[in-house]
Amino acid sequence: MQPQFMQAALDLAREKMLLGEGGPFSALVVQGNRVVAKGWNRVTRALDPTAHAEIEAIRRACSLLQDFQLRGCVLYSSCEPCPMCWAAIHWSRLDEVFFAGTRHDAAAAGFDDEHLYRELGLEAQARRLRMTQAPGPYPEKARELFDTWMRWPGRRMY
Amino acid sequence: MQPQFMQAALDLAREKMLLGEGGPFSALVVQGNRVVAKGWNRVTRALDPTAHAEIEAIRRACSLLQDFQLRGCVLYSSCEPCPMCWAAIHWSRLDEVFFAGTRHDAAAAGFDDEHLYRELGLEAQARRLRMTQAPGPYPEKARELFDTWMRWPGRRMY
Repeated sequence: MQPQFMQAALDLAREKMLLGEGGPFSALVVQGNRVVAKGWNRVTRALDPTAHAEIEAIRRACSLLQDFQLRGCVLYSSCEPCPMCWAAIHWSRLDEVFFAGTRHDAAAAGFDDEHLYRELGLEAQARRLRMTQAPGPYPEKARELFDTWMRWPGRRMY
Repeated sequence: MQPQFMQAALDLAREKMLLGEGGPFSALVVQGNRVVAKGWNRVTRALDPTAHAEIEAIRRACSLLQDFQLRGCVLYSSCEPCPMCWAAIHWSRLDEVFFAGTRHDAAAAGFDDEHLYRELGLEAQARRLRMTQAPGPYPEKARELFDTWMRWPGRRMY
């Protein structure tokens, strides 16, 4: 861990929060000794529930590096990522993550991260939000669609 | 479930996949009998690992409705959401989700969803991607930041 980047993430989170951008969260994508991109929570400002710091930093870094993967990069986050950002970090193939606050700190400040991690651990039927597989022909149609994908010559994996 | 929206999601997924936008996934945000917004996978086209169908649909719906929450709306997705989209659905406060394909169908077609769900169930130490809480003064600084947030009069929860 390079401490200056953790400090920079905490400073940025405070600065953007006090500007009314959103919650007190920020993240930096770092390659070697260089900050590639910064992100901060913009949920309430941008009216975008997906505009968490890590998502914003990943999207910007990918745009700047012109790549949909961030192998060789490290993420510094002011707080432990929520499940959305955790999965985005995996999809972006970042090498490693350092964070300062925890999901418990976030929960104490009124954020849902801990609740989401708990829900994820439950069986589908026990969760609060209902997610149902469509009855009828749709599951089979979805499998046919994946078959088309597997046979499609333009396929590009990610 | 309104079958026409499930069919529309599957049709859109196929159409956009064959245009080379990304993987064979799409999602619709529906309010009553009306499609508010459509999303489809654009990961490889947009060079954005977060551009999954559900995220795209949620972002567009929020932009169109000028709200960072989607209470009263239902999501139709061509496939069971990955953990990133699953959490985004929670953050956006959607009422309910219907999907056609499953995470197992997606895994059989080369997508990582199932692996991510497995990783989420592991203890942090057992996971492949390292995530480490910063040593030194940073955890305490993060708690101070959350304290500032809790005392800040401009705070807007989401």
